[in-house]
Amino acid sequence: MSKDVHDLSTPCLILDKAKLYNNAQRLADRAHEFRVNLRPHLKTAKSHEVARIATKSHFGGITVSTLREAEYFAENGFTDITYAVCITPNKFARAESIVNQGIDLKIITDSVEVAQALSERDILHRVLIEIDCGEHRTGASPDGDQFMQIARILNDAKNVELVGVITHGGHSYGCKSIEEIITVAEQERRLAVKSAERLRKEGIGVSCISIGSTPTACFGESFEGVTEIRPGVYLFGDLFQAGLGVCSENDIAVCVLASVISINEKRNTFVIDAGGLALSKDRSTANSSRDMGFGKVVGLSMQYSEFNLRIKEVHQEHGEVYCDDANFPWEQLKVGDFVMVLVNHICMTAAMYDEYVVIDSGKVIAKWSRINGW
Amino acid sequence: MSKDVHDLSTPCLILDKAKLYNNAQRLADRAHEFRVNLRPHLKTAKSHEVARIATKSHFGGITVSTLREAEYFAENGFTDITYAVCITPNKFARAESIVNQGIDLKIITDSVEVAQALSERDILHRVLIEIDCGEHRTGASPDGDQFMQIARILNDAKNVELVGVITHGGHSYGCKSIEEIITVAEQERRLAVKSAERLRKEGIGVSCISIGSTPTACFGESFEGVTEIRPGVYLFGDLFQAGLGVCSENDIAVCVLASVISINEKRNTFVIDAGGLALSKDRSTANSSRDMGFGKVVGLSMQYSEFNLRIKEVHQEHGEVYCDDANFPWEQLKVGDFVMVLVNHICMTAAMYDEYVVIDSGKVIAKWSRINGW
Repeated sequence: MSKDVHDLSTPCLILDKAKLYNNAQRLADRAHEFRVNLRPHLKTAKSHEVARIATKSHFGGITVSTLREAEYFAENGFTDITYAVCITPNKFARAESIVNQGIDLKIITDSVEVAQALSERDILHRVLIEIDCGEHRTGASPDGDQFMQIARILNDAKNVELVGVITHGGHSYGCKSIEEIITVAEQERRLAVKSAERLRKEGIGVSCISIGSTPTACFGESFEGVTEIRPGVYLFGDLFQAGLGVCSENDIAVCVLASVISINEKRNTFVIDAGGLALSKDRSTANSSRDMGFGKVVGLSMQYSEFNLRIKEVHQEHGEVYCDDANFPWEQLKVGDFVMVLVNHICMTAAMYDEYVVIDSGKVIAKWSRINGW
Repeated sequence: MSKDVHDLSTPCLILDKAKLYNNAQRLADRAHEFRVNLRPHLKTAKSHEVARIATKSHFGGITVSTLREAEYFAENGFTDITYAVCITPNKFARAESIVNQGIDLKIITDSVEVAQALSERDILHRVLIEIDCGEHRTGASPDGDQFMQIARILNDAKNVELVGVITHGGHSYGCKSIEEIITVAEQERRLAVKSAERLRKEGIGVSCISIGSTPTACFGESFEGVTEIRPGVYLFGDLFQAGLGVCSENDIAVCVLASVISINEKRNTFVIDAGGLALSKDRSTANSSRDMGFGKVVGLSMQYSEFNLRIKEVHQEHGEVYCDDANFPWEQLKVGDFVMVLVNHICMTAAMYDEYVVIDSGKVIAKWSRINGW
């Protein structure tokens, strides 16, 4: 298939293949340079076609955020999968049916009760203990008793293989400078390695020490002692990541194609058919130096990028674009025009779409799948 | 099918059938009382099963927000459909293929160019002119030249039937009291009727005068001159609507079922497996008198509703629940517990799910479909 962008129905999700390859390569090279395994987090892309590109030149392991993703990637030939959200007993059966397909599925927990419940299963589970390296979301304290209690239960269990420790330096998203990200990255690394050392001192073997967020993976200066990193959003990039310095706006590989549906020059606004659903209601640029509302309209060929067209308000299917630049060429803008929109947080936005429209040199060359839901 | 809620996989979307019927009936009765047609907006429910309930005892017409919804409802036997988002020329062909199935599809515009483009089509289009009644989103000014220019083009076109005028009093969402909503409702009614009068004075026939948002439909004191109302979210309700006074928390018919995945009593938090994707990132209660973060956790049988458990932060698959009530029974809360979550804006949340799990008297009785995307 090769067709024109103008034949698409809006809103739709556009993936620029060349940019994706560049983004993937950059981090794959970095991981090689630091001699650390790359286990890309597919929670952003949720696509086996993208996963193939992301795992190229690495060992092929991936990270997922839902059991539905795990099932989908297993069906599509991925055999080494870490489900990186704390599991609960009501999800054991689904996890086990993936394990029974011969998949090396690793699950995680920070709970004594869950460790106990896992130790009573008939199927072998491979488990990582989640530790909290400062994000304060989930994860046991690496210094606390709970961590060792979980480790002992899992280590003693007949049907559990305690694989190692896992953590997420998600507080890197709140950093205001590269220096701050480097500090968080070192904290993430240090605490992951330290918690593994605690286990080893008790004679508990650990083969995997897993860390990672896109900012810490991109800027960490040492990965010593760590076995793998799990960044995800680096594959696509977005306005928030660009604000953090992780990518430039020009690196952003996935954006939304929308149509202008109404123009009101008197109010300095026009409306596009991408609203709260097509963009998501993520406002992660709100506290950054450049608040882009719900997204930045750059035009079909980036021709409006200098005007900072901010989507100031969204309704379910309406995005209201604001422009007070006196030089904006209102006379060129027509109802029905296609525009590209860069979004705040691509993980949220992409989840609204069934598929990617893949473009290369401006031509539509393929549709790639996505697996949404749970 | 009749199974236990405990057998469900979380997160999932729960629809309480009895509450839905009550919500539907209340507005259907109100419309009868005011002798105005009810054309429910299915952008919230996106489900033909729900649409049947919503149209019961009325004429059967519905409103949709996407062409995909129009196609889905047409396939499911609905024949009178208004697509209430301004159309663009690149969507004509899709609309026409719906018309060619014998569906009475009405489309809307506020643009002279689109009116002109419509007048050149070979297929008969039935068109409403959108006017702005104060929301300032889309819609021509009812007093302006543009409105009459569009009307004349459409009225003169061979293949267009100008059906009437349509408006949306969406600024009712910003109201702080029932009195303010009543004022917006009257403004919406008055301007819709006035714009239709303008057309009639020029000899342009108008059969449809369409208004509506849930707040104005619920509290408007007169619908004189109006032919139909198009509320949508009243079917389900949500925390924002409860804040507006449109429903009570107990009327909310759709919520998210989630599992507790991690507990940290020291920080007064626990984490559920419903995060930014399962709940949406809508923050519409932020400016209300009771900011509920990203949702309110009420427990499986409302047992926590008095504790005001607020989801203070969301990550993609994590929702962090905050509770500083000294009386909260932490000792009862276990990892793996199911909890119900009331959400800020159900239109956004529901769009993340493929289906509804329908419950009646606490038992799962059915799965109902949804049509997401575009």
